[in-house]
Amino acid sequence: MTTAKRDTYTPETLLTVAVQIFNERGYDGTSMEHLSKAAGISKSSIYHHVSGKEELLRRAVSRALDSLFAVLDEAGAQRGRAIERIEYVTRRTVEVLMAELPYVTLLLRVRGNTKTERWALDRRREFDQRVSDLLKAAAADGDLRTDVDIRLVTRLLFGMVNSLVEWYRPHPGGSPEGGQLAETVVRLAFDGLRTEEAS
Amino acid sequence: MTTAKRDTYTPETLLTVAVQIFNERGYDGTSMEHLSKAAGISKSSIYHHVSGKEELLRRAVSRALDSLFAVLDEAGAQRGRAIERIEYVTRRTVEVLMAELPYVTLLLRVRGNTKTERWALDRRREFDQRVSDLLKAAAADGDLRTDVDIRLVTRLLFGMVNSLVEWYRPHPGGSPEGGQLAETVVRLAFDGLRTEEAS
Repeated sequence: MTTAKRDTYTPETLLTVAVQIFNERGYDGTSMEHLSKAAGISKSSIYHHVSGKEELLRRAVSRALDSLFAVLDEAGAQRGRAIERIEYVTRRTVEVLMAELPYVTLLLRVRGNTKTERWALDRRREFDQRVSDLLKAAAADGDLRTDVDIRLVTRLLFGMVNSLVEWYRPHPGGSPEGGQLAETVVRLAFDGLRTEEAS
Repeated sequence: MTTAKRDTYTPETLLTVAVQIFNERGYDGTSMEHLSKAAGISKSSIYHHVSGKEELLRRAVSRALDSLFAVLDEAGAQRGRAIERIEYVTRRTVEVLMAELPYVTLLLRVRGNTKTERWALDRRREFDQRVSDLLKAAAADGDLRTDVDIRLVTRLLFGMVNSLVEWYRPHPGGSPEGGQLAETVVRLAFDGLRTEEAS
């Protein structure tokens, strides 16, 4: 048992605790009671900050979605050939996943049982669509192989990138592998594993 | 409510029902009561076939693991240059995932709370290790790019392949996309998405 702490939470710090519990127990399996115990403050103290667990979910997945969509507005995603832009977006998406790991993990586990979850799924599909459009533009430029289906490639690319939430764990005090990881994803997806001579 | 059916199950057909329920509710969240309701037979009828839900789990993940390990013994995985063998294993692994979708889905969701689950996780690691060894052999032959970490590549490759269980759904009456899907995974992973001219 946690002794009830004086409520020194802000909506931001409460969110950190909530996301951890959502990821451990699943959003559906988390009650306000669980959140209250984990935060060590009363339920009424939580209601002082937010209207309920759905607001916490909305704030959490918004943080992940805002970070992902922000990538699409960066200069590297806006200028240059489509192939350069899609490589840039892939690299930065991996970096966002690593930087916002618990928030993106929660976003990727959303099921669609509530209004907020369905909204999050819609936004995810919108992001996937934007990436798919970039891949199509690169294909139209003749920079992408033509023997693959773009819809399938989009799914496989996200399958690879999103798998990070299952196995990537940051090193305490910053990960030296971070840059290498993002670069490996880009090299694997766009240049492939084979050396030129072997292909 | 399902009216109790006369028990026409065999251990095999009972397994089909059990795997579906395990995948829907999670193995931990499934009781013998849930299995009995889904199968429409009494718990004692189930105990006539198997010792309990852990035996059903063991049979189900064994089916997935046996199919995956069998790939490593096929001629295409045994003969030729390592780069050809690893491409073969990747293609066939995708095909096994599609053919044994519910069984592999269950295998990939195993958590490690019971002896059977820990055994399944050990076997999965063993399979990943065998694939990683093939990638190392291809790198030693000079057929794999040297600027990537093999351990990382193994994870990304399985991340991409295993993501299939989240989004691939077979078409009723056989999937015409099956061959294309396996081929796309291999092309993406080994040759990359860029055309030669663009790289």
